[in-house]
Amino acid sequence: MSISTCLTKIDTPFLFVDKTKFDRNVLALREKLAMHDVVLRPHLKTVKSIAGAKHLLVDFDSPATVSTVKEAEVFAGAGYTNLIYAVGIAPQKLPRIQTLLNNGINISILLDSVAQAKAVVAFCQAQHINIPTLLEIDCDGHRGGIQPDDAQLIEIANTLHQGGAELRGVLTHAGESYDCSSEQALIAAAEGERLAAVIAATRLIESGLPCPVVSVGSTPTAHFAKNLAGVTEVRAGVYTFFDLVMAGIGVCQPEDIALSVVTSVIGHNEKKEWLFIDAGWMSLSQDRGTRTQRKDCDYGLVCDSNGDIIPGLQVIGTNQEHGIIATVDGSKLPTIAVGTQLRILPNHACATAAMHAGYYVGHSDQIELDYWQRIQGW
Amino acid sequence: MSISTCLTKIDTPFLFVDKTKFDRNVLALREKLAMHDVVLRPHLKTVKSIAGAKHLLVDFDSPATVSTVKEAEVFAGAGYTNLIYAVGIAPQKLPRIQTLLNNGINISILLDSVAQAKAVVAFCQAQHINIPTLLEIDCDGHRGGIQPDDAQLIEIANTLHQGGAELRGVLTHAGESYDCSSEQALIAAAEGERLAAVIAATRLIESGLPCPVVSVGSTPTAHFAKNLAGVTEVRAGVYTFFDLVMAGIGVCQPEDIALSVVTSVIGHNEKKEWLFIDAGWMSLSQDRGTRTQRKDCDYGLVCDSNGDIIPGLQVIGTNQEHGIIATVDGSKLPTIAVGTQLRILPNHACATAAMHAGYYVGHSDQIELDYWQRIQGW
Repeated sequence: MSISTCLTKIDTPFLFVDKTKFDRNVLALREKLAMHDVVLRPHLKTVKSIAGAKHLLVDFDSPATVSTVKEAEVFAGAGYTNLIYAVGIAPQKLPRIQTLLNNGINISILLDSVAQAKAVVAFCQAQHINIPTLLEIDCDGHRGGIQPDDAQLIEIANTLHQGGAELRGVLTHAGESYDCSSEQALIAAAEGERLAAVIAATRLIESGLPCPVVSVGSTPTAHFAKNLAGVTEVRAGVYTFFDLVMAGIGVCQPEDIALSVVTSVIGHNEKKEWLFIDAGWMSLSQDRGTRTQRKDCDYGLVCDSNGDIIPGLQVIGTNQEHGIIATVDGSKLPTIAVGTQLRILPNHACATAAMHAGYYVGHSDQIELDYWQRIQGW
Repeated sequence: MSISTCLTKIDTPFLFVDKTKFDRNVLALREKLAMHDVVLRPHLKTVKSIAGAKHLLVDFDSPATVSTVKEAEVFAGAGYTNLIYAVGIAPQKLPRIQTLLNNGINISILLDSVAQAKAVVAFCQAQHINIPTLLEIDCDGHRGGIQPDDAQLIEIANTLHQGGAELRGVLTHAGESYDCSSEQALIAAAEGERLAAVIAATRLIESGLPCPVVSVGSTPTAHFAKNLAGVTEVRAGVYTFFDLVMAGIGVCQPEDIALSVVTSVIGHNEKKEWLFIDAGWMSLSQDRGTRTQRKDCDYGLVCDSNGDIIPGLQVIGTNQEHGIIATVDGSKLPTIAVGTQLRILPNHACATAAMHAGYYVGHSDQIELDYWQRIQGW
């Protein structure tokens, strides 16, 4: 019995992880970063699963990144002790961070404003606790963070350091690297990310402030960084599954994508040459991350039940529980019978995985599937 | 203590249902349809919650629509006995339908092709069961369904009727009504939906076939139908919560929207006049349904902690756990402190609700919140 036969026993739609590709992806970045003097701090917001994370984290004190306090709590509960909560802190969340610290979890928070720093300091003083805190640095104007040369950097750092929080260092994320379209641009994005973090760290140190952690990362820059001098750790999440956005940037090939949505054909509009599947946006997500790329994959590329891409087919539209497959060039659809299982490769693995409670996982020669439950909520 | 004080005790982001608006929305459609000789069959794919559905369904045998077999199973388990599974059937799902029928649930399935009809008939004959089956009619080219005048309509109906399935009737959905932008267009969409269903039903009856059910519906057409002659039931889902897409079409006002995501301010980029919130696409969804409307609301409109819209603000961008609020005209942001709770009105209630495990629910004068758990998975 092959894996594709196993999959027919599960009611569609569902997530499938090709474990052979997953392992290869995980190893590839680990080996790439082993050439540098940095540690990899996987971002667990992608896999978001204890069963999945154990393939990324070597030990219980291996560094990891989380995107919600809930993830921090669940991973801490599973024994993982070395976490960064990499979303700007809201003061209301500090009591839950305190509980984690009191339980022996080495968790850092992130902020980028004097207002947040004052709130953290007030909390630390009131609760007699030192909360490890990273400063978010803006390396490319993508989102939040302080410019590395901004006077506020030192003001915020001083507020924390003098107020009784633990100034742990700086963190940046080259979100704009997702818009790169050449190797040269990716290398430049990685160097820009490194420089922003190192400049900010240098300013802190020259001001007599501590900065043990210099954290950078995104999957594109992690894969294309040539120089990581001054950086202590690299974060990346989607490198584990990969997706069509990453393939569009040139970080992987579509054949490397380990995550897919398994779906069944439910109908056929012969006049429009549309094939209907039982995977709508409820299982695929509404992510359209490839829209602005050279190859717009609509809502995903289509693979047969063995996971091989069927050239020329895409999911061109979605409703809640319906997907529409058509040929990109408007030519006739191949004959695919009602009930046939297909696999859809996602634009954005984090977004597609987020629509599901868990993953069915297997190697291509595996006959019993594993199940990785996902963490939900905040 | 007001409801907004209650909400500050819950960790953001989370879904909130303003029960006063919800009740008003539910009542409005019920009263509108009471003028016609039809029953309302709420589509539970929006609320997707047993606790929520009991406010829509008067009795356990009240008609209801579901979008997944899982919904059918959960609502059946809660006592509801009158269901349509309104997504084209995949043959693999028939055993679960059979179990529901064997448990006394009056559930109909939907199909639109000879291939599906043959699969259903084969299953019915093998299992000695009559599965109630509706024919999906295409009223506007939006998705699937048979054209009402298509010769295949009678072929499919005969295949079912002679093969031992129970031909229950016809069903159509005016999906294109979501693109309407005038009252006239909405009235025309409703009439087009009615006509398609009635023409198909008439053809079945004239061919000596049964057609007890003539089911139409979408929230816009349900609200704007002037004539429902020949129709037996109307389906609608999002009328309960409403959303910005419905407001854009003119089916409701933004002030009628009962669903919002409650979020906290986590930062401020003073140079860009951006406010960061802890609601990204993970809690708001990536739905951009207003993109093609006259007023593009980006990822949602912004309300203060009392639920009153703050004019001129929108969520202009989202990452996984970050949202960015800015003014639509690029003017200066009002001062909103870190930690402040805001509420975001969603583009598409079904999509935003789908990102959450449940809803916190309350009237504006309520001091204890209810919680409605959502049904997840397939």
